Amino acid sequence: MAAAVSSLSNAPLAISLGDPAGIGPEVIAKCWDNRSAFNLPPFVAIGDLRSVQAVWDGPIEIIEDPRGADSAFDHGLPLIQLAAPQADVPGHPSPAGAHCSLDSLELAVGLARSGSASAVVTGPVAKEQLYAIGFQHPGQTEFVAERCGISPGNVVMMLAGPTLRTVPVTTHVPFANVPEALTSALIESRGRATLRGLQRNFGIPAPRLAVAGLNPHSGEGGALGREEIEIIEPAIAALAAEGWTVTGPQPADTMFHSRARANYDAALCMYHDQALIPIKALHFEDAVNLTLGLPIVRTAPDHGTAFDIAGQDRADPRPMASAIIMAAQCAAQRSDAA
Amino acid sequence: MAAAVSSLSNAPLAISLGDPAGIGPEVIAKCWDNRSAFNLPPFVAIGDLRSVQAVWDGPIEIIEDPRGADSAFDHGLPLIQLAAPQADVPGHPSPAGAHCSLDSLELAVGLARSGSASAVVTGPVAKEQLYAIGFQHPGQTEFVAERCGISPGNVVMMLAGPTLRTVPVTTHVPFANVPEALTSALIESRGRATLRGLQRNFGIPAPRLAVAGLNPHSGEGGALGREEIEIIEPAIAALAAEGWTVTGPQPADTMFHSRARANYDAALCMYHDQALIPIKALHFEDAVNLTLGLPIVRTAPDHGTAFDIAGQDRADPRPMASAIIMAAQCAAQRSDAA
Repeated sequence: MAAAVSSLSNAPLAISLGDPAGIGPEVIAKCWDNRSAFNLPPFVAIGDLRSVQAVWDGPIEIIEDPRGADSAFDHGLPLIQLAAPQADVPGHPSPAGAHCSLDSLELAVGLARSGSASAVVTGPVAKEQLYAIGFQHPGQTEFVAERCGISPGNVVMMLAGPTLRTVPVTTHVPFANVPEALTSALIESRGRATLRGLQRNFGIPAPRLAVAGLNPHSGEGGALGREEIEIIEPAIAALAAEGWTVTGPQPADTMFHSRARANYDAALCMYHDQALIPIKALHFEDAVNLTLGLPIVRTAPDHGTAFDIAGQDRADPRPMASAIIMAAQCAAQRSDAA
Repeated sequence: MAAAVSSLSNAPLAISLGDPAGIGPEVIAKCWDNRSAFNLPPFVAIGDLRSVQAVWDGPIEIIEDPRGADSAFDHGLPLIQLAAPQADVPGHPSPAGAHCSLDSLELAVGLARSGSASAVVTGPVAKEQLYAIGFQHPGQTEFVAERCGISPGNVVMMLAGPTLRTVPVTTHVPFANVPEALTSALIESRGRATLRGLQRNFGIPAPRLAVAGLNPHSGEGGALGREEIEIIEPAIAALAAEGWTVTGPQPADTMFHSRARANYDAALCMYHDQALIPIKALHFEDAVNLTLGLPIVRTAPDHGTAFDIAGQDRADPRPMASAIIMAAQCAAQRSDAA
């Protein structure tokens, strides 16, 4: 895990608990428990008190104003209460819990937008539950974008670990539809958002972007597919013409070993698994989902609600701790630059 | 690198030097230099003496019969001479060199088939050079299969490292053509060859095969693609009906972290990069290409001729050493079982 930084702003991080029946409350409570070992900055959790109490016996400090988080943090887990009409049993999600998870997210984003929180970390939600209560967005990322007044098409998901950052150009697209979903314009805009995000959130003045090919061996000059020539190379040329440092298209199989990773700051990947296979193979415990293109900092641990193990004290808090640390680092970076 | 074993057979390993202008001669000579540190069993190199002398000053023991390799191995690199009409300059391949690489391969395979060599390790060749002299096979693997009287469709490429083994069902197929190239019959036959190969070469009596999905999140029940339901699941069911332990289709992004890898002996992957991204991200220096389905043991380092660095003393011998060790281990395993 990377070293923590103290946020330069006095505002704490706001963490939405996610679905109250998932592992969000447990991993957030465990992060507070291990705040010294993990070297975590002050944060305030937002959600239903009972969802934490159901899985954790530690002290909770109910607060109403995030400004109280700093002093409360030494004594207990600071929590802003957003009660659901009924308490969920861990592992058994309900529509009421889904509503609560959405309200928590909304408040966390609002606090960050107003400056009362320095950044947002989002606990895992259950999309099926959210869809069932009428949620219209593909996921939390798009909801956060909308609440920030940003078109969801202009925000980008980055997966960031200690030695690798990847960004998928296409995400939840069936494999067979990826080639038609890939356009030069899309690669270019995702690439630009990634490069700007590296500057803004990581303080890299001249970021280096490596762009993956789509086909085996990056198409071998057209013999194994022409997307590199027709779609990817023009996008790379357009970004390079703007002055960015962009390499590729690189054969995807040889760009993720340690020496190769040292040559770039982020890898732009053409499809979901091309981005997620290497990051999870290398950094399963400490990969963080970071949303680029927002006026606020938003991170999330790269795991789901894990209803199957909720309430059994089996959830690993390290991904959430990594998300908290990265949110603090990015917020400090932005604050430094401002 | 895994611990070496001494081959139970008295026959040495036969190593074809590969293209004389590539890094094959250099990495094989460096393996002999480091035979104690790498704990390598006796081997005999096959190819043009001058290609080794051009890149290495160490002692070479010319032999004509592989039975002499054992005693020669202490004094120098045992080499069976197969001279090209002209000596290549490192980094500058020629048709004559391509012929020589093919002759070396042919002799190495012949020695293994007759039992004069315990296994074959193949140095890297240049496919473009081979095609230019009329080579009709996609690569060395298919040539070896034919020389062993096996249909190329029945041999399988496995990439094996210390903590992961992967097998691609489709290999050098353009991304867009992968869905149509995938059939239940193909997955089933590749899966069966992999399972038998795990028994035969690694001595795993009840091997566990994990089968990857094709789509993000393994298709999410059809919402993100139907290949899992229509093509992959029937193949898994057919293999399971034969008594094999087969799981999946598993989401590809969450099957390659260390805890997940502990649950299977090999991962059957649907396409080239799905198999090669994780193995190279995790085991770039010691992944070995092992051909399953042959009557002989054949391994190769998982790298190419690297003409750009040939003759500069920059080539890393560890992948070749890993290929030698795995060949010896697999040969010993087969010999034990025989």
